[in-house]
Amino acid sequence: MKNEPRMIEVRKNVLKANDVIAHALRDRFRAAGVFVVSLVSSPGSGKTAFLEKTLTLLRQNYSVAALVGDLATENDAVRLARSQAPVKQIVTGTVCHLEAAMVEKALADWDLDQLDFLFVENVGNLVCPSSYDLGENLRIVLMSVTEGEDKPLKYPTIFNSADAGVITKIDLAKVVEFDESAALANIQAVRPGMLVFTVSAKTGLGTENFLDYLRSRRAVSQENAIA
Amino acid sequence: MKNEPRMIEVRKNVLKANDVIAHALRDRFRAAGVFVVSLVSSPGSGKTAFLEKTLTLLRQNYSVAALVGDLATENDAVRLARSQAPVKQIVTGTVCHLEAAMVEKALADWDLDQLDFLFVENVGNLVCPSSYDLGENLRIVLMSVTEGEDKPLKYPTIFNSADAGVITKIDLAKVVEFDESAALANIQAVRPGMLVFTVSAKTGLGTENFLDYLRSRRAVSQENAIA
Repeated sequence: MKNEPRMIEVRKNVLKANDVIAHALRDRFRAAGVFVVSLVSSPGSGKTAFLEKTLTLLRQNYSVAALVGDLATENDAVRLARSQAPVKQIVTGTVCHLEAAMVEKALADWDLDQLDFLFVENVGNLVCPSSYDLGENLRIVLMSVTEGEDKPLKYPTIFNSADAGVITKIDLAKVVEFDESAALANIQAVRPGMLVFTVSAKTGLGTENFLDYLRSRRAVSQENAIA
Repeated sequence: MKNEPRMIEVRKNVLKANDVIAHALRDRFRAAGVFVVSLVSSPGSGKTAFLEKTLTLLRQNYSVAALVGDLATENDAVRLARSQAPVKQIVTGTVCHLEAAMVEKALADWDLDQLDFLFVENVGNLVCPSSYDLGENLRIVLMSVTEGEDKPLKYPTIFNSADAGVITKIDLAKVVEFDESAALANIQAVRPGMLVFTVSAKTGLGTENFLDYLRSRRAVSQENAIA
């Protein structure tokens, strides 16, 4: 289509503008000493259930909060609020991803100095969020055992843009005949060396390993900030 | 962001160009007497398994074919080819949806007069495909029981742009504690009167009802073409 070249040019400008804001956010997060973790996945992969579990466990020892992106509803914020952590919903309308400007706006009246961890749950989408830096320290890509082992091969960009992977709903692995070694091999094919956690928000399996990872990554990040 | 208004203007032009091609495709489909059905859903909802089942059963009495969109692999085309129907993969790269021009290009060397049904499986995405008319007669939105009952409320646009809904993997309903009446109520809240089929590609449950629907919709469409 003849409009495409112009479309791409404009999109590059939007992405560049996003990077400027993401950079400023990253500086602000570092200054406040808050460790920021974003979550991306398909709709229905269990991001919200996993995040609720994570918030509930972490807030026993840390000050935690979350932003959650969605097209139309505030349901996720209501669910996450059960963890007792401060939560704010970002309603994107028809936009298929979060952008740094949305995060910046949502945080306008928050005192980041008070936080140890901030989580940002993206809109459910395995394509669009990969292009938008949100200034986060870590990006986690989730896939559930019910989606099939082939998802990393079919959506390589999002796996490449993430720092670690989480396989969710592992309690359902047997009943859906999930082939864990095939899924892990597919992740490694796309993103060699990627750290992958296997968890169940329902039974709690694997959650502690993931929390250890977050705590150690936060500690390293703070040492780097001091050095 | 100051680039946004220009972005939106360009996007409108792209959509308008898409509509022109979709309109031409629709005329071509009508002239050839082929009934075109597109499928949209999240990644991992079971579009490909359901389509393989549909192609296998329909081709006993009809001439059927399929196009399948994906970011990176040709895996789906390989799976669908097991149905013995002609299948072509459209690899979209980083584009999160199919566009009418991609369908037009993929069909360039196909003789549509030979076909009764053509299926078009979109990229796994509950957001972006909703904006792009592909010239299809019917658009079907699928959601699996493993994704949660709230998906219609969270992704209303795609449910609004579809003609009928399919709830997949119903064999897993019990184990994932799927609340079917809540899911149906959420669909009706977003799209009152929407016809919804409940199916399992694994057991075959519900498939025949869906095939009856396709056959009757095709018959009506042919009567209208003659009238």
